[in-house]
Amino acid sequence: MRWEIQIDTTERLQAIDITDRVNELLKGARSGAALISVKHTTCGIIVNEAEEGLMEDYVKWLSNLFPINGKYRHNQIDNNGHAHLSSAVVGNSRLIPISEGKLDLGTWQRVILLEFDGPRRRTVGVTLMQ
Amino acid sequence: MRWEIQIDTTERLQAIDITDRVNELLKGARSGAALISVKHTTCGIIVNEAEEGLMEDYVKWLSNLFPINGKYRHNQIDNNGHAHLSSAVVGNSRLIPISEGKLDLGTWQRVILLEFDGPRRRTVGVTLMQ
Amino acid sequence: MRWEIQIDTTERLQAIDITDRVNELLKGARSGAALISVKHTTCGIIVNEAEEGLMEDYVKWLSNLFPINGKYRHNQIDNNGHAHLSSAVVGNSRLIPISEGKLDLGTWQRVILLEFDGPRRRTVGVTLMQ
Repeated sequence: MRWEIQIDTTERLQAIDITDRVNELLKGARSGAALISVKHTTCGIIVNEAEEGLMEDYVKWLSNLFPINGKYRHNQIDNNGHAHLSSAVVGNSRLIPISEGKLDLGTWQRVILLEFDGPRRRTVGVTLMQ
Repeated sequence: MRWEIQIDTTERLQAIDITDRVNELLKGARSGAALISVKHTTCGIIVNEAEEGLMEDYVKWLSNLFPINGKYRHNQIDNNGHAHLSSAVVGNSRLIPISEGKLDLGTWQRVILLEFDGPRRRTVGVTLMQ
Repeated sequence: MRWEIQIDTTERLQAIDITDRVNELLKGARSGAALISVKHTTCGIIVNEAEEGLMEDYVKWLSNLFPINGKYRHNQIDNNGHAHLSSAVVGNSRLIPISEGKLDLGTWQRVILLEFDGPRRRTVGVTLMQ
């Protein structure tokens, strides 16, 4: 079983809570795990808290590690080396156990799409694993 | 199949080798993979060497990237922005193949819980995947 | 089902595109996902673009975060603390959905081995998950 979610990001750097949209897809799933993944190379997936301030901290602090204006060899042909580096290190997926037809997350855990090179239309895949 | 392990961390920043406790649970498992995950947002799971010096390096170097006293918007309502950032980037889980009733790790690989905001009681989930 | 690929890295810091070698193994696989993992502690696996400049950026920028000559307690007994830190944070595996007998990657996505302490012979495991 595999589904897709479309997300239109609106800023260059942005964190978007996609938990509810993933859970809508999993209503019939009894158990196993869900692989939440993107087929893009300039955004990422994390699992953490979606508190308003933190949502800004994620992308701000990653752009401290990999500055938008840093010297990337990639930027000889493009302008988004920072986004590839952030995406590569954070990772393009998370695997999360399922329980009773939804993601088995902790009290504060949410599934968050991190956009490093928006605004763009992003597709998030949800693959059911047994 | 899903099990849980309780770990009481004793320091604010700490690395704890949990490999043996995971392997105890997997004795009956023939094959597949184990998802080692936490439902917390201020600790993480890595797979790497548990050499004594490195165990200090992991948390010290992550607190260089995300300093405890850094300026986090999250810290307007809490005091652990560094821990959320470290947890988000490192990740809350690792998926590891199983072989002959235990984790199929390399000679130097261990499963390590990284605590970024202890001391706390932490629960580590072990989910068997086929 | 589990396979292994041997890769001989040739530099201390190096990024190597292993996508084609993984896909050769998956020709018979209908669906599920592939866990691409290493049993080493000084290299890592990422999924991102293999553009020539970026392949240098990955290892260069990670060695900005964790410098080769940084002060690691691990380096009292060895000389590769930077490599363990990079490996731990990037991760030793990625899980990727399979579609029609190959990795279901995006247009720009490739599976890349990051070497942080070469040259060495590296073994990459490919585990089929349903």
